[in-house]
Amino acid sequence: VTPGPIPPLRLPAGLDTPALVIDLDVVEANAARMQAAMDTAGVALRPHAKTHKSVMLARLQLNAGARGITVGTTGEAEVMFRGGINDIFIAYPLWAVGSKADRLWDILDDVELRLRVGFDSIEGARRLREMMSSSARTLEVMLEVDPGNHRTGVPPERAGEIAAGAQALGLEVVGAFSHGGHSYAGPDKTAGAAADELGALTTAAAAMRAEGIEPRVLSAGSTPTALGIARAPVTEVRPGTYLLGDRTQVALGGSPPHGVAVAVAATVVSTSMPGQVVIDAGAKSLTKDIQPYLRGFGSLPAYPAAVIERLSDYHGVVRIPEGTRAPELGEVVAVAPNHVCPVVDLFDRFVATRAGETVGDPPVDARGRSG
Amino acid sequence: VTPGPIPPLRLPAGLDTPALVIDLDVVEANAARMQAAMDTAGVALRPHAKTHKSVMLARLQLNAGARGITVGTTGEAEVMFRGGINDIFIAYPLWAVGSKADRLWDILDDVELRLRVGFDSIEGARRLREMMSSSARTLEVMLEVDPGNHRTGVPPERAGEIAAGAQALGLEVVGAFSHGGHSYAGPDKTAGAAADELGALTTAAAAMRAEGIEPRVLSAGSTPTALGIARAPVTEVRPGTYLLGDRTQVALGGSPPHGVAVAVAATVVSTSMPGQVVIDAGAKSLTKDIQPYLRGFGSLPAYPAAVIERLSDYHGVVRIPEGTRAPELGEVVAVAPNHVCPVVDLFDRFVATRAGETVGDPPVDARGRSG
Repeated sequence: VTPGPIPPLRLPAGLDTPALVIDLDVVEANAARMQAAMDTAGVALRPHAKTHKSVMLARLQLNAGARGITVGTTGEAEVMFRGGINDIFIAYPLWAVGSKADRLWDILDDVELRLRVGFDSIEGARRLREMMSSSARTLEVMLEVDPGNHRTGVPPERAGEIAAGAQALGLEVVGAFSHGGHSYAGPDKTAGAAADELGALTTAAAAMRAEGIEPRVLSAGSTPTALGIARAPVTEVRPGTYLLGDRTQVALGGSPPHGVAVAVAATVVSTSMPGQVVIDAGAKSLTKDIQPYLRGFGSLPAYPAAVIERLSDYHGVVRIPEGTRAPELGEVVAVAPNHVCPVVDLFDRFVATRAGETVGDPPVDARGRSG
Repeated sequence: VTPGPIPPLRLPAGLDTPALVIDLDVVEANAARMQAAMDTAGVALRPHAKTHKSVMLARLQLNAGARGITVGTTGEAEVMFRGGINDIFIAYPLWAVGSKADRLWDILDDVELRLRVGFDSIEGARRLREMMSSSARTLEVMLEVDPGNHRTGVPPERAGEIAAGAQALGLEVVGAFSHGGHSYAGPDKTAGAAADELGALTTAAAAMRAEGIEPRVLSAGSTPTALGIARAPVTEVRPGTYLLGDRTQVALGGSPPHGVAVAVAATVVSTSMPGQVVIDAGAKSLTKDIQPYLRGFGSLPAYPAAVIERLSDYHGVVRIPEGTRAPELGEVVAVAPNHVCPVVDLFDRFVATRAGETVGDPPVDARGRSG
């Protein structure tokens, strides 16, 4: 089934472009829809905050019923914790040495915080244990297993042995996690990737039990696989992009077309070349993220035939096929991004809207906190 | 001639990764080399600050002999002006309305500032004139002409007519500029692109003179074409990337291999998959900028066979071909970026080094100022 077109996001008048615009009504609907699906499945939702990097949007997810949040970096954990969020999972195989370990330790020291940290090697676990050496607390860790994404994570059948090794070091292994990132290969891959995650976590759980370790948490996740993996033995799911949506998610079925809550507002600054217009959103606003199943570096939902064909830092060259409508010089257009996560990371603030009117300009609190 | 390998940047010990590292000794050598070439050619150097976005590095260029600086956005102009730099050219067809016009006006109001602004349409010129309507000052503008890059700019033969139109509105047309961005198509395209820029500016100057407008400034530029265009009738050249260097410039001959002054320092966080290692620099640190003539999303100069094959937000998957050396788990490696400009824009600060030792951590002052 080919998804329908993404509706153009309604933009407030008078924007200083390029601007990141997020429609909070759509965001709330996305949050409620995913939460309802997880509640029905009886699985905890722990959304990935790397998509929005916003304390306000993380709180919105928690208020909608999320169990806690997921982050990818120590910097995101620091920002979210200081923003008052106290149940955080760093779903990343951290190498905790030097100032990175000091920073992690600084927030771990707070008794209010439940922080879980990922690992995928005994060597990594040893660094985490050394970081905790002066503490009476134990650190809750989650072992990453590879469901076929072939990025990070141990083979599921080795999960027992490695979890036992970490336990022996003095860490508390609370469970295992996976990321079915191979779902991004195309719309025909998402169902298989979800099945792979279920299989990997089932195998990992059995291997851990064989070593006498009961996995309390089996955490899976990516937005395209979120619905497919929300079943036993999985206990928690970690989608991120579902909250804002983007062209990739729509193509993969991870977001309905009307679930795209975000746009980069851009002004047409040049129409000097025939057959094209140039907007003031380039690679530093849209990123060069592409997918084989998407055309161009973003789309203009109000001009469905237009193709964003080339990006330089501050220019987006938009081809206007002959006989199709083009935006005018000076017109402000909404661009639907290919992949929202790195786009949000380029902006210090976003324009929050409801029904096309500005209601605030909250900070992208964890912008640039990539380590 | 295939350029030699990029030497690995010397990294200080104890970096918290990912980190942007810039070797100031190499930067100074790059600044001096380009300045000497322009001095010999008798052409003014006006470096593009969008590459580094740093007031400190812009001052370094001015101290080395640059005439002024170039920027791409109003935000960069604001930051550089407030940093004490008072000769700035916004080489962009600004659409000066609303708060963008207000912001530009705020800095234009300063008598110490020489600000020039680009335009490529009478409509754009009209907005600039309206912005100036309450001022006794005239605004110096530069007409963009297209040298075959087919992005922005008017056809050179129309430069006279459009310059005369802007002059009639009450703007002061001081000259014309071009950007030979088609030089980036490959190493065999740079000489042709430089010739195109010279031809376009020669034609534009003749067309302007035919309308009674003497172009005082003919400004050309891109790093790959910089040396080729430094001759009459061109009066100023605007390269940016030469200061920091990157893989693209080395491939195009715009930077010698030892001129790459920048690296993203990254830690190997996972070695769980055979044949690869994973570093903590992903798309939010390296960008997905690629070129057909480059392999991977950056390179590891200390491990020349390694290929950065896949990026997710915080993971870089590095393939290690069989029989070649691999960095160890926990090792910190220097990554040479494909395209330095959007990479610098991801970091709030950089680690400044000399001879492999940290000498400071200056801000990337204009980071995120993309409009």
